[in-house]
Amino acid sequence: MTEPTAELEEASNGADVRPGVPVMATKEQLDSVKYGADGLVVAIVQEASTLEVLMVAYMDEEALRRTCESGRTWFYSRSRKEYWLKGETSGERQYVHEISYDCDGDALLIIIDQEGQGACHTGNHSCFYRKFGQE
Amino acid sequence: MTEPTAELEEASNGADVRPGVPVMATKEQLDSVKYGADGLVVAIVQEASTLEVLMVAYMDEEALRRTCESGRTWFYSRSRKEYWLKGETSGERQYVHEISYDCDGDALLIIIDQEGQGACHTGNHSCFYRKFGQE
Repeated sequence: MTEPTAELEEASNGADVRPGVPVMATKEQLDSVKYGADGLVVAIVQEASTLEVLMVAYMDEEALRRTCESGRTWFYSRSRKEYWLKGETSGERQYVHEISYDCDGDALLIIIDQEGQGACHTGNHSCFYRKFGQE
Repeated sequence: MTEPTAELEEASNGADVRPGVPVMATKEQLDSVKYGADGLVVAIVQEASTLEVLMVAYMDEEALRRTCESGRTWFYSRSRKEYWLKGETSGERQYVHEISYDCDGDALLIIIDQEGQGACHTGNHSCFYRKFGQE
C-alpha cells in the first residue's frame, strides 16, 4: 500500500479545519475600540450554546483584524509576545458567532462555538473552573 | 402633616438596600489572584439568571476584599482613581452569587443578580449592546 504523501496528509488535515465566517465590522465600529497603553484590549470569550464564559485573553488591532477576517479567534499573548490562533496546535478551535464592544469601547465580548474539549489548557472546558469558597 | 425627618428618610432609604451575602474565600484562593503592574485584575460581571455578560471592570486587592465581605460589587475606577460600590448612587446594585478565578489567576468572573434597569450607565442592561456588523 502506498504511503500517503505529505501533500495528501496536509489536504486531509486541512479538510478537518472548516473555515470560519468572517465578521463584517465597519471602519467606524473598529475605530470605536479603545486600546490601552500596551496596544491591547481585553476580550471575553463566551460560548454561544451554553453562555458559559470560557476564557479571557487580549487582542491588539491586528489580532482583532485577523479574528474578523477569519471568523476564528486570534489573540496576542502578553507573555510570549506573539499572535496565536486559538486551537491551531491543540485543535480546540473557536468559531466566532458575533463580537460586541462595550460602552467605553475598551472591552470586547466574543461569542463563539468551541471545538474540542474546551478553552482551557488545563483540559477544563472553561478557564474559570475554580470558585472562591469551594474546597 | 409632619415633614419626614432626615433620620426617617435615611432609615427608609436604608431599608431598600438589602445586605449582600459575603463570599468566603480562603487565604490561598485570594493569594491565587494575580494583579497586574497597576495592581488591578480584570473582573467580568455575568448575570446569574440570564448568563448575560453585563460589564467588565477592574478590582484591586482592596476592592476584591470589600466585594467578598459585602457580597456586593466594589470596583476600582482607573479613570477616577477611586473605589466605587456599584449602584451606590444609581441603585443598579449587584449582589454576588459566586466568584471564580481563571487558570492563570489574572481574571475574575463575578456571577451576580442585577438590580434596577441594568449594569450600563447608558441605561442598557448590558454594556455590550453594540455588535460588529449591525447598523
